[in-house]
Amino acid sequence: MSLSVAASTQSLSAQTVFEHLQDVRLKSPRVHAITNSVAQTFTANILLALGAVPSMTIAPDEVAGFVSGADALLINLGTLDEIRRGSIPVAIEAAQTAGRPVCVDPVFVNRSAIRCKFAKDLMVSKPDLVRLNGAELETLFPERTEVEALIAAGTVFAVTGEEDKIESRGEDFRLLNGHPLMARVTATGCAGGAVMAAFTSVRADKALASACGLSVFNIAGEIAASRAAGPGSFVPELLDALYTLSFQDIEIRLKSA
Amino acid sequence: MSLSVAASTQSLSAQTVFEHLQDVRLKSPRVHAITNSVAQTFTANILLALGAVPSMTIAPDEVAGFVSGADALLINLGTLDEIRRGSIPVAIEAAQTAGRPVCVDPVFVNRSAIRCKFAKDLMVSKPDLVRLNGAELETLFPERTEVEALIAAGTVFAVTGEEDKIESRGEDFRLLNGHPLMARVTATGCAGGAVMAAFTSVRADKALASACGLSVFNIAGEIAASRAAGPGSFVPELLDALYTLSFQDIEIRLKSA
Amino acid sequence: MSLSVAASTQSLSAQTVFEHLQDVRLKSPRVHAITNSVAQTFTANILLALGAVPSMTIAPDEVAGFVSGADALLINLGTLDEIRRGSIPVAIEAAQTAGRPVCVDPVFVNRSAIRCKFAKDLMVSKPDLVRLNGAELETLFPERTEVEALIAAGTVFAVTGEEDKIESRGEDFRLLNGHPLMARVTATGCAGGAVMAAFTSVRADKALASACGLSVFNIAGEIAASRAAGPGSFVPELLDALYTLSFQDIEIRLKSA
Repeated sequence: MSLSVAASTQSLSAQTVFEHLQDVRLKSPRVHAITNSVAQTFTANILLALGAVPSMTIAPDEVAGFVSGADALLINLGTLDEIRRGSIPVAIEAAQTAGRPVCVDPVFVNRSAIRCKFAKDLMVSKPDLVRLNGAELETLFPERTEVEALIAAGTVFAVTGEEDKIESRGEDFRLLNGHPLMARVTATGCAGGAVMAAFTSVRADKALASACGLSVFNIAGEIAASRAAGPGSFVPELLDALYTLSFQDIEIRLKSA
Repeated sequence: MSLSVAASTQSLSAQTVFEHLQDVRLKSPRVHAITNSVAQTFTANILLALGAVPSMTIAPDEVAGFVSGADALLINLGTLDEIRRGSIPVAIEAAQTAGRPVCVDPVFVNRSAIRCKFAKDLMVSKPDLVRLNGAELETLFPERTEVEALIAAGTVFAVTGEEDKIESRGEDFRLLNGHPLMARVTATGCAGGAVMAAFTSVRADKALASACGLSVFNIAGEIAASRAAGPGSFVPELLDALYTLSFQDIEIRLKSA
Repeated sequence: MSLSVAASTQSLSAQTVFEHLQDVRLKSPRVHAITNSVAQTFTANILLALGAVPSMTIAPDEVAGFVSGADALLINLGTLDEIRRGSIPVAIEAAQTAGRPVCVDPVFVNRSAIRCKFAKDLMVSKPDLVRLNGAELETLFPERTEVEALIAAGTVFAVTGEEDKIESRGEDFRLLNGHPLMARVTATGCAGGAVMAAFTSVRADKALASACGLSVFNIAGEIAASRAAGPGSFVPELLDALYTLSFQDIEIRLKSA
């Protein structure tokens, strides 16, 4: 299913991607992540390696306090449970009241009808970014018009896969970085969503910021894969690559069409 | 306490172990793991490195949907809480309705009477595999006849320790691989249970499959220990070793009596 | 805010620190940690690398059984939720009944009023050790007299920062080890609290034991940083350094004023 409404596909420059990365490193945004229990530690470490700051509490009575002082909110629906279902709407309201971007990653909505319904209800809040794969997209939005309406309202879609597509009311991006080893480590997609959330917090253009964040993460993944002997050594290499990522690293590897 | 009923102890061949491993890699079974919060990320990464696919939600209202499409179910009783106690019976019923193997790891039943009672009640469902250490075995089954009754009904027992014993209605195995460094990393036993669960999903002979799975995991542990400088570097080495494990690796190291 | 009541600042010797470390390695104390979901796996692995044993269940109906047989209790208030709030008082009572040290790490009380109130209530139990940073200290104890009263009652305070201060009814310590990379890995502070808890379990002098434990952890951090290419490789290096830490390592690096 193509998402394109009427936007033109833009190419990313290494300069633009690196400027966004430097902004994140300088501003050190705090990303509050309500994420699944499998992804929490890895997501926190990815954010710290990037230069951002994680916070992760999910308790409904504490979450508004944490979110209102954060720079971005990530909602990831993996291991969705009663506590998370209670805190997510509270967190979204707190973020939107404070004018912070809200990024939603509706993990595995294609495996659970109750989760799909919950994710659908979240779309009423018009999140700034929805990150999902093709199967999740088709389950969550059986009608193309629903996606178009959200895009028209300002939501950015990041549809990940072999090729990643960023689609928005303004410009679109097709991104070609990444490595198959990333799929052999749990929660890389979830952590990538957190990176995009950090990037959306430092710039007004959420589509461009998302494209830059996803490119940074996938280029770090390529560098890590080139140094790793398997999915075990890939994890520390990924964190190190993200921590040390330079303009040259981006210039050599960036692929967008 | 000896478990042996009347079965004969079999030797494993490297060829058999490798064929099972290749089956797992080709079929890429999905293992749904209701496991403890300390083990979740490591278990997911071990399954991915093996070539299997993890899913891990524990919410009672979602778990049946996840389990009914999975290839095996792992129940690990670490950090047992109200949510897990609610979802475990639902998950077992979903797995058995779908004809999928159920593997139970009654972690620390010797430290909690309430957990021991819960684990005992689970035995009514006659799981395909029960994995535990000697202390847990003696606490859970003070009467030898209880174990014999389960074995007679088809349950496979994997009693881990310096020497691992697989006992079943058919054949028994004594396995001698592994390394002390594995005990200096949290949740290696839990992750090993997930590997066995993946193996039981690809073959009808659950005792042989369990023996092959445990051997693969412990041989990867030996290789990792030979390359590691301590328990920290052991973790990425274990994942890499599992990911790259070859017939030669197994042939050189396999020890069964 | 200075904490000092009337104690004199002591210098640590490498010999003393190493003797404490060897005690932990020989006695292999079990630390029951009610800690946040982001820190659980890393904390367990740090304790195992140190030579201690972790247990981590948080279920209110199981926790007393686990704690009463443990050698120390760590209460970390990260990701505080209803289950943790229910189990923490039960755990503290079980530990104090059994005569075991109780260590409290009131993470982020400066970000959540409800958590601050909960932490304040815990102080009534007069924990053996309170570990926190300067911002958390000022939020939790706006009045200096409150800290003084706790110190007079026997509580040890470990205030971490660029310089770490251990303050007690008896002696005080100023510790100068550590490395900035430790702040780029999630839950290093939390894991450091677990190391201190292990040390307090093997000696009567909780201030000295805490100072030795924190020095061991921070020296391992320095060694890891000297070998790491970033925060990713830092993690396995830290665990390996802790596992292999020698008298010479301590002698060369120990800095206390």
